[in-house]
Amino acid sequence: MLIGPGDDAALLQLAALGQCVVTTDMVTDGVDFHLSEIDPRRAGYKALAVNLSDLAAMAAKPVAVVVSVVLPKSGGFELGKSICEGMLPLAEKHGVAMAGGDVNTWDGPLAISITAIGEPTSRGPLLRSGAKPGDRILVTGRFGGSILSKHLDFEPRVHEALLLHERYDLHAGMDCSDGLSLDLSRLAKESGCGAAVDLQKIPIADDAVRLSKQTPGGPRPLDHALADGEDFELILAVERTSAAKLIADQPLAPLPITDIGHFVDTAGLWAIDGDRLSTLEARGFEHR
Amino acid sequence: MLIGPGDDAALLQLAALGQCVVTTDMVTDGVDFHLSEIDPRRAGYKALAVNLSDLAAMAAKPVAVVVSVVLPKSGGFELGKSICEGMLPLAEKHGVAMAGGDVNTWDGPLAISITAIGEPTSRGPLLRSGAKPGDRILVTGRFGGSILSKHLDFEPRVHEALLLHERYDLHAGMDCSDGLSLDLSRLAKESGCGAAVDLQKIPIADDAVRLSKQTPGGPRPLDHALADGEDFELILAVERTSAAKLIADQPLAPLPITDIGHFVDTAGLWAIDGDRLSTLEARGFEHR
Repeated sequence: MLIGPGDDAALLQLAALGQCVVTTDMVTDGVDFHLSEIDPRRAGYKALAVNLSDLAAMAAKPVAVVVSVVLPKSGGFELGKSICEGMLPLAEKHGVAMAGGDVNTWDGPLAISITAIGEPTSRGPLLRSGAKPGDRILVTGRFGGSILSKHLDFEPRVHEALLLHERYDLHAGMDCSDGLSLDLSRLAKESGCGAAVDLQKIPIADDAVRLSKQTPGGPRPLDHALADGEDFELILAVERTSAAKLIADQPLAPLPITDIGHFVDTAGLWAIDGDRLSTLEARGFEHR
Repeated sequence: MLIGPGDDAALLQLAALGQCVVTTDMVTDGVDFHLSEIDPRRAGYKALAVNLSDLAAMAAKPVAVVVSVVLPKSGGFELGKSICEGMLPLAEKHGVAMAGGDVNTWDGPLAISITAIGEPTSRGPLLRSGAKPGDRILVTGRFGGSILSKHLDFEPRVHEALLLHERYDLHAGMDCSDGLSLDLSRLAKESGCGAAVDLQKIPIADDAVRLSKQTPGGPRPLDHALADGEDFELILAVERTSAAKLIADQPLAPLPITDIGHFVDTAGLWAIDGDRLSTLEARGFEHR
């Protein structure tokens, strides 16, 4: 095991063979989705997409997935079929083999566990630990309000990560699942540095604005962008010259890539406040 | 994907790298164990052991596992800790890296999903499809009555499978999870042949006898041995000369290896009845 728990996926050295990237994520009814409120295909889609997003976070090419599912006894067969239908187009799109699985039924609610296996490219895997002070913080897409829809139908940034890792000098990266500020603080910590963010530059999703309007006096759109999570966008540490080129190129257009700040020597998460840095709280979903 | 769903595990070809074996199994409270009746460490042990048994069935060396677990909200932390304690000694024994995982909580019961990754040896993976008419049917250990205890504390036959695959001419193999007669019939079917069993020679576990005594007039010990499942012993198709040597050697002693019959041209499962073959029902646990 070259990289164990703590990064987006594990990196394994198979004897005399090469490296392989492995990640697992389980999604469950009532936590990651509410089956009573959605088309069950979306549950299948999400289960696969979160795993592919973890491979994207490592800039690894998806090879295969195995799926374990436990279905409620009542209506289980139809549900299983729908879940599969939700997964297949996404698997096909990414050229991922559905290599096997395990189907069970029980008296409990639906749970879907997927393990995804990928291969790093010749540039090696993209870890959380490679950011250096002075690197720019780049993000794909827009943040916040994912609960309104995106958490069920986001596009895992697999092709995007591979393309960026191939063409630019990425030092570190991860996908944003628990909240932009929290995930960024984790990446900085893994890299032994801090992160300074220009809050004016955070790309805010339309759904963050919509969600904010639903609760007058509640969190602002920016708060949603910083803390909601399940955006499944990439957070990248990019060498500064390469970052400038990347921002000018916008190679993923129409998907925007935005420079939101830079990594700094001082540990912690910071807001850029003119010439000074003020403390920024890392907020998001904490796994306890 | 060289071998997909249908065998004990999938066999993947990683580009320019080599082969890797992947399997996944989920175990759940109320189905695979009853948490209210057992030390929760045994649930963790079983979750890992069933997956290692699938690698053994492919004669693959375990490399790493990833674990997804969903814990009931109440008492989840302590439960998660116990599950982990149940796994660790087994992982250590087999030199398996715990490469990562995903821990969730919810309002439902405990579910543990594990994916195990292994490597075939230079002899290649042991598939279900290689048995030839004339091959002997060899099994490790004894069968039946696993519900009394063995289904929670069996020894996955990893070392045994590797040793036998190295030294003898194994044509096919699998692990017995759903019932000896049912699993054997599956192996024969995958190999495009039939299987003829000498019922006198089936090695019957003490627990099969015990279980039979608990229900006077119910299934006989032999019935339990043929149909109970969760024995997690190896069922092997072995070239006949090599099989004779294997039986004479008894290389796993004190664990017995028993010759219970041979594969035949005619599809189906058969009982050897003097010079004739009579139909034998394939019984066990059917996944629906």
